[in-house]
Amino acid sequence: MNRTHTSGQLNEQHIGESIQLIGWVQKRRDLGGLIFVDVRDRSGLVQVVFNPEISEAAIEVADKLRNEYIIQVTGTVIARAANQVNPNITSGAIEVHATEVVIINDAKTPPFAIENQTDAGEDVRLKYRYLDLRRPVMYDTFKMRSDITKTVRRFLDDEGFLEVETPILTKSTPEGARDYLVPSRVHNGEFYALPQSPQLFKQMLMVAGFERYYQIARCFRDEDLRADRQPEFTQIDMEMSFLSMDEILEMNERMMKKIMKEVKGIDVTIPFARMDYDEAMARYGSDKPDVRFGLELVDLSETVKDSAFKVFAAAVESGGQVKAINVKGAAANYSRKDIDALGEFAGIYGAKGLAWLKVDEEGLKGPIAKFFEGEAQASLIQTLEASAGDLLLFVADKKSVVADSLGALRLKLGKDLGLIDENHFEFLWVVNWPLFEYDEKEGRYYAAHHPFTRPFDEDLPLMDTDPSKVRAQAYDLVLNGYELGGGSLRIYSRDVQEKMFQVLGFAEEEAKEQFGFLMEAFEYGTPPHGGVAFGLDRVVMLLSGSTNLRDTIAFPKTASASDLLTQAPSPVAQAQLEELNLKLK
Amino acid sequence: MNRTHTSGQLNEQHIGESIQLIGWVQKRRDLGGLIFVDVRDRSGLVQVVFNPEISEAAIEVADKLRNEYIIQVTGTVIARAANQVNPNITSGAIEVHATEVVIINDAKTPPFAIENQTDAGEDVRLKYRYLDLRRPVMYDTFKMRSDITKTVRRFLDDEGFLEVETPILTKSTPEGARDYLVPSRVHNGEFYALPQSPQLFKQMLMVAGFERYYQIARCFRDEDLRADRQPEFTQIDMEMSFLSMDEILEMNERMMKKIMKEVKGIDVTIPFARMDYDEAMARYGSDKPDVRFGLELVDLSETVKDSAFKVFAAAVESGGQVKAINVKGAAANYSRKDIDALGEFAGIYGAKGLAWLKVDEEGLKGPIAKFFEGEAQASLIQTLEASAGDLLLFVADKKSVVADSLGALRLKLGKDLGLIDENHFEFLWVVNWPLFEYDEKEGRYYAAHHPFTRPFDEDLPLMDTDPSKVRAQAYDLVLNGYELGGGSLRIYSRDVQEKMFQVLGFAEEEAKEQFGFLMEAFEYGTPPHGGVAFGLDRVVMLLSGSTNLRDTIAFPKTASASDLLTQAPSPVAQAQLEELNLKLK
Repeated sequence: MNRTHTSGQLNEQHIGESIQLIGWVQKRRDLGGLIFVDVRDRSGLVQVVFNPEISEAAIEVADKLRNEYIIQVTGTVIARAANQVNPNITSGAIEVHATEVVIINDAKTPPFAIENQTDAGEDVRLKYRYLDLRRPVMYDTFKMRSDITKTVRRFLDDEGFLEVETPILTKSTPEGARDYLVPSRVHNGEFYALPQSPQLFKQMLMVAGFERYYQIARCFRDEDLRADRQPEFTQIDMEMSFLSMDEILEMNERMMKKIMKEVKGIDVTIPFARMDYDEAMARYGSDKPDVRFGLELVDLSETVKDSAFKVFAAAVESGGQVKAINVKGAAANYSRKDIDALGEFAGIYGAKGLAWLKVDEEGLKGPIAKFFEGEAQASLIQTLEASAGDLLLFVADKKSVVADSLGALRLKLGKDLGLIDENHFEFLWVVNWPLFEYDEKEGRYYAAHHPFTRPFDEDLPLMDTDPSKVRAQAYDLVLNGYELGGGSLRIYSRDVQEKMFQVLGFAEEEAKEQFGFLMEAFEYGTPPHGGVAFGLDRVVMLLSGSTNLRDTIAFPKTASASDLLTQAPSPVAQAQLEELNLKLK
Repeated sequence: MNRTHTSGQLNEQHIGESIQLIGWVQKRRDLGGLIFVDVRDRSGLVQVVFNPEISEAAIEVADKLRNEYIIQVTGTVIARAANQVNPNITSGAIEVHATEVVIINDAKTPPFAIENQTDAGEDVRLKYRYLDLRRPVMYDTFKMRSDITKTVRRFLDDEGFLEVETPILTKSTPEGARDYLVPSRVHNGEFYALPQSPQLFKQMLMVAGFERYYQIARCFRDEDLRADRQPEFTQIDMEMSFLSMDEILEMNERMMKKIMKEVKGIDVTIPFARMDYDEAMARYGSDKPDVRFGLELVDLSETVKDSAFKVFAAAVESGGQVKAINVKGAAANYSRKDIDALGEFAGIYGAKGLAWLKVDEEGLKGPIAKFFEGEAQASLIQTLEASAGDLLLFVADKKSVVADSLGALRLKLGKDLGLIDENHFEFLWVVNWPLFEYDEKEGRYYAAHHPFTRPFDEDLPLMDTDPSKVRAQAYDLVLNGYELGGGSLRIYSRDVQEKMFQVLGFAEEEAKEQFGFLMEAFEYGTPPHGGVAFGLDRVVMLLSGSTNLRDTIAFPKTASASDLLTQAPSPVAQAQLEELNLKLK
């Protein structure tokens, strides 16, 4: 077997050259005594022409070719006639006139066509993943994935990071999602857990003085499958010592800029904008706002707290909020029925109702307009910067419901109204997160990120008095409304870490049992350190333009555990289960 | 925190410069009113001098410093007096005169000194792994590991390989070692297995037309811990389509050459030598011979088959062998007691006895010399190229025992006699392996490599008539007596794969159940393909000069499953175990 060129590489520059290709038959057509065969390899397509006047033997073989046969073709590159040029492919101006062809392997008719557009269901695509991955759009995604990790590695290598592998068979940790457990045969009665992240190991590497660590790390969560979640996922994971938050953010901005340039050819501007968590929640109702468009949430609580519209007044009275979105110029586009549909949508996020007003030359119109006369109307119009033709949408509820429902509504409206430039990539750091979240049901605090996040020094006294006010030295990177990942500076002293566990409700003994090794490590000269983790699968999804996370993973999990490798459990495995006394419900 | 330089970076070129360092206190000495502090970071050491005439404040802080404190030092680089120069470190010709010092973190006295030479036991080192990894020799190993993967990735990127991640949660396979099993909570009664290698997935990627795949892949085997084996290990894993065995070997030689150049600064010559499996077994008694020295095994079966020494004659008569090593010039160095010890050593490998002869000017001497008179003596001396002063060591037994015991003895003698140049790296391909091994006890054939290895085309008819004679298109790369890894061309047609399973004793239904997905894939236009996998841990061990595999793994497993992260199983994990009805013996 030999090839001098790949299909996607050939163009006008090769005219007149004798070449040899190896690839898959994409399509065969017979036309006027000639046979045309599109030969595909991972680099692209080229048209090969078989002509009895060039080779009787070759056209005889060509006659037997079917889709997905693998062939080796020898021939000459010839310019196509001007009216035959196909501008959609690199090789569109040329074709190969075959002198020889050898069938390397044959193929049954595949269950779906190997083309970018497919109407095959995902079940079939996953069953025949090896055929699904032949579709150029799929190959391109995995090429991009590989290019992204290549870029990340080269960048971090150059910044002095060491790639270090941390264990996959490890211990379970008490916070976070459920671990996958792995019974140990050698150590009777004990078990390993698969890591949800290399968090503790990378902190150990900082204690060890490695200074800069990275890993493209596999992580695991035993959670239900969802469209946007896989039980195993991949993190671009790093940790570094002696750097400030600004320095960490700056370095990651340069890394992201490089990725965007390498894989998308796009120059993004750095530094990225930064926004406080509180501001993101206030203006966008989201901690990962898509800032490519407006439709911001406007707080009217102050404006309507004494409103004649009792729903509004009561919401504010009971400690909630009234907020609105001014959908500029959209009044005419939304019928009452359309608005009812928006109300139902907001209801998914907990809103009990969606109040609305339209604005015309005379003022506010709509079912609740009567509650807003004179001064009240003027102040509403002023606060919302409303003018004739606008549609105003209101939610009055407790703070979290207002944020969730109007935040979701904002995204829906942005899409529906075509306000989002899908080719634009807008990065944003969300900073100044709260360190804790209070769970009202359980009456306890949880770590908003994880229990190793460092509070601001000046907020330390609040750990005792008002934990909800403590800010974390944490940061999330948001791209177009998706959280790519984030990180934080870490606690590196025993007393702060102990205080942290105390606020989280750990008994002293319990904290020591679970995390004694960490707190002990902190006593032996631990450097100030911090880190970042980005979700690689999501980065690939966003940059490839896909909306299906499974399209970014070569062999994803599906609803059945028995996916892909569909063989039955082997006798060896069966015996193992028995030996482990492993009985599953 | 800020640093202008690292400790290991400073040298004579910086004399006169104002600099700032951050690092760990390696050592503090008070001497004549001055305080000397060695400051260590991952790059190396530098001596910092505190002088009350330069800064009273600084020397006051310096007085409080203890080993492993982290400090930030500001000062000036000064040349050391000629008699103070330390030629062992990069910064040995200079020192830093401190004007300011800040303690960034303090430290308790570590349980062992942070030095290359340590008498701390491995248990203590592993318990305080974050301190053990501070020892420069350990850091250097992980720096080398990172440099090796960096070199591998850059090489393979440039060769057009795509990095593709294959699943960690997968299905168990019936061949090979025991799998780790992972119960699935979502899919009641089902379980995942951790992969022993990405073998089937990478073959799927070839079927998918990816053409060149690589991954630095984590693999798992639920086997007992041994000094040279960890339950999780890392493979440099690749697979490629349309290449011949020669092309695959050539590419891997260039990769290894590049690794040796980048991390050891050594130019190795390519192509590497190739040796048939049969020849390696015959000459070295090993399929992974250390060819840096002689002491080859010489087959005397023909010479002694009619010997007066009945032990030899009987061994040959019963289908066994008689082989010997001529230990040139060693007769005088080995007393009868020494030779008895060698005999005991050979016994570990199954040899029932170790016969010996010494050669002097008059001929053969020793207990069995009387059996070798005249013609018999002359032919022995000639075959073994023996001369005065030589020690001849013989084993007569069945073929496998002769190979194992003399092979091991050869290695021992090579080391004991200092015949091995430990700084020399000698690569060797072992090729032309048998496809099958016959298990006499079980009366069946096993795959010598794995059941996806392609036989030589011309040996295909032997699959039916004499499987033991079928040669595999397989290759192992050996370095200094260690197997670095290997690979093979793979079967890519359904009928050969079916024949393979048939020889391995699979019932047709069983083969279909276990590997139907693979054989079905082969029918849709599968390219000829092959691959290689190298054990990264072992590569690092050999190139770093370590003899302990655990020193190449940041957080290795030890005899106890509860190692490293010594917290107790969390309540969440306990609940999970119960929910899964997971009861371990």
